[in-house]
Amino acid sequence: MNPRIAQTSVPVIDPLAHRWSPRAFDVEHTFPEGALRGAFEAARWAPSANNTQPWRFILARRGTETFAKIEAALLGFNQQWAGAAGALVVNIAVTADAEGKPLPWAEYDLGQAVAHFSVQAQADGFHVHQMGGFDRAAISEAFGLTEPQHPISITAIGAIGEADQLPEALREREVAPRVRADLEDLFIVRD
Amino acid sequence: MNPRIAQTSVPVIDPLAHRWSPRAFDVEHTFPEGALRGAFEAARWAPSANNTQPWRFILARRGTETFAKIEAALLGFNQQWAGAAGALVVNIAVTADAEGKPLPWAEYDLGQAVAHFSVQAQADGFHVHQMGGFDRAAISEAFGLTEPQHPISITAIGAIGEADQLPEALREREVAPRVRADLEDLFIVRD
Repeated sequence: MNPRIAQTSVPVIDPLAHRWSPRAFDVEHTFPEGALRGAFEAARWAPSANNTQPWRFILARRGTETFAKIEAALLGFNQQWAGAAGALVVNIAVTADAEGKPLPWAEYDLGQAVAHFSVQAQADGFHVHQMGGFDRAAISEAFGLTEPQHPISITAIGAIGEADQLPEALREREVAPRVRADLEDLFIVRD
Repeated sequence: MNPRIAQTSVPVIDPLAHRWSPRAFDVEHTFPEGALRGAFEAARWAPSANNTQPWRFILARRGTETFAKIEAALLGFNQQWAGAAGALVVNIAVTADAEGKPLPWAEYDLGQAVAHFSVQAQADGFHVHQMGGFDRAAISEAFGLTEPQHPISITAIGAIGEADQLPEALREREVAPRVRADLEDLFIVRD
């Protein structure tokens, strides 16, 4: 039994069951231009409140100046592994429309778009790992993001690597069984 | 060409390409107990910041008292169509942990969980339509939700119906081509 495959009481599709968030990425693997188009098409077609599509992205493939700028804004342990990913993507919520009217579902909808991105990336043979640990102000400054653009998460994406390439503190988490709350505990009411 | 299938420049998996948000649901179709287990397993295994899983759900199948309570809190046009869905699900973000520490990615993570739910539901032969138009205070009062539980969206899920069952004002939208911003316009930087 692969400890990284989701243990579900009924089957779910492979891109969901096999999806998990590795820290070990193959530093030899690179993305040719356009290789992530499917994942971004998936994000593009995600649902959003009134079809407002309140999401924008910064895509940086490893080796570019943009990648280095994003990597420099990562915090803590993320600095130790994310640089091996084939690409980093800054996920940006746009929290108001062109007339300044608030878009209260912007972060929620961005989460949906990134989820669709991740599912398609998994189907295309890649793995993704989203990070919240980064300096938002540093990212905004580096890329000139202004209100109402808010960088919410950064996705590392690439071909999966080997756990033993990681610093010791991260190695064990890479192979441990995955855990979630019991399904029953997610329901406040079920009728 | 089916106008409701996403037009993508490269292929994406069927549950993503074929997913869209109908208003016409088959009022004859009902969910036996457990029929939505796959979709909820998909939500359960979604990623979240530090694996905090800040999501809870209220599930109501058509014909139950819970369903009627949720339907009563819907606003505007949603009142006119959502009652035909086989089930309604209230999607709740938990914005702080048990010690009161804020979970700033709660809405974003809930969006991911609901996206996973939707993808699996689509793969299982159902359609979903998420709504933001509902009375949050009424839902919270009806189900005793208190801080830090916030109802963010309501999902209608069921077997798809026919456009001509809808009120005239909604019928045309049901069959019109789907639209999204150009892929290129989603990038602030692409490197």
